[in-house]
Amino acid sequence: MEAKEISQAVVGRLPRYFRYLGELKDEGVERISSQELSELMKVTASQIRQDFNNFGGFGQQGYGYNVEFLYKEIGRILGLENKHNFIIIGAGNLGRALGNYMNFERRGFIFKGMFDKNPELIGSDVRGIKVMPMEEMERFVRENDIDIAILTIPKTSAVEVADRLVQNGIRAIWNFAHVDLNVPDGIQVENVHLSDSLMKLSYNINRYMKESNKD
Amino acid sequence: MEAKEISQAVVGRLPRYFRYLGELKDEGVERISSQELSELMKVTASQIRQDFNNFGGFGQQGYGYNVEFLYKEIGRILGLENKHNFIIIGAGNLGRALGNYMNFERRGFIFKGMFDKNPELIGSDVRGIKVMPMEEMERFVRENDIDIAILTIPKTSAVEVADRLVQNGIRAIWNFAHVDLNVPDGIQVENVHLSDSLMKLSYNINRYMKESNKD
Repeated sequence: MEAKEISQAVVGRLPRYFRYLGELKDEGVERISSQELSELMKVTASQIRQDFNNFGGFGQQGYGYNVEFLYKEIGRILGLENKHNFIIIGAGNLGRALGNYMNFERRGFIFKGMFDKNPELIGSDVRGIKVMPMEEMERFVRENDIDIAILTIPKTSAVEVADRLVQNGIRAIWNFAHVDLNVPDGIQVENVHLSDSLMKLSYNINRYMKESNKD
Repeated sequence: MEAKEISQAVVGRLPRYFRYLGELKDEGVERISSQELSELMKVTASQIRQDFNNFGGFGQQGYGYNVEFLYKEIGRILGLENKHNFIIIGAGNLGRALGNYMNFERRGFIFKGMFDKNPELIGSDVRGIKVMPMEEMERFVRENDIDIAILTIPKTSAVEVADRLVQNGIRAIWNFAHVDLNVPDGIQVENVHLSDSLMKLSYNINRYMKESNKD
């Protein structure tokens, strides 16, 4: 049923549908129309129908969508039924915050290892995982079927570490370093550039203040 | 020079331009053509020219852009020369990671206070700021000219806390809670839904693995 080429814009919206449908399911809602979902999520009903049509439409719109079916289908499309082992590079506050985030396991992401170059952090414990020295990273990736690396290290070392990970078979990088990584085709990268997000907020605050002052 | 209506898509790209131009400036590069910038940033030169035309074009393209001028102009458009006081709600790992992020000050964001409901965290110190109890949040926001609140609390309390912040004059919320906030017009919200980002990564890994298996 899945179309071959789904735009990254559509893919980017799927997790939000999944989140809302999970909440509806938990509240015991069995069916929802695209109109109701539209009001809840503040996107147009036509957008919802267009997005779902990429995946065959998910059933009869006249009677609304079956919430549990839709939740499961979107989860399946997102690949959440598959298990992926991940490691975290960088055992600072952000790395620890991510390591402690229990929902990863619910989504099929299994926390396997954590690495840092700081001797004071090596051996410390994050949810049962001991922080290892960077020198052990390559071997660990190869021997433990690691698919995903989370990078929470400074941008100065991120590019080199990403290269080492790719050479040792990593499939995907969730990148929190403030640098864009150059990786070969087929290696998936998802960037979380927090300072970019904050600057966007800055723009919108200042824009709004200027416009308010004009009135 | 600024056009009145800039799309959020363009605004969302400005921080990345700012980041690259800052690096070029630090490397001593004085001028760069849209073609060179295009190759560096892996976006089309026509995209760059279109984006910059929203702000008057930033000068003669034939000779390339003046890097320092462009960096400063984009920083000004982003409002980074203005100062904004911020607080962090939630003193867990993620809140602490953000509190310790020194670059905020360079961008005009001044860390003023931190709040948590956990008695064990109250009184602890993050970069010279003592964690305060939630009961003091409203008064603190009113008395300390706080523009921005960073929410790193569970989604169950985020909606209620956001309401209290809005009632006490907050202008913007940087929201890390896994919930979409409903705030009045004029309050700026920038969401960082980390689990959405991870699910997008999951989709792309699984999509790529399926396509590789077909070959």
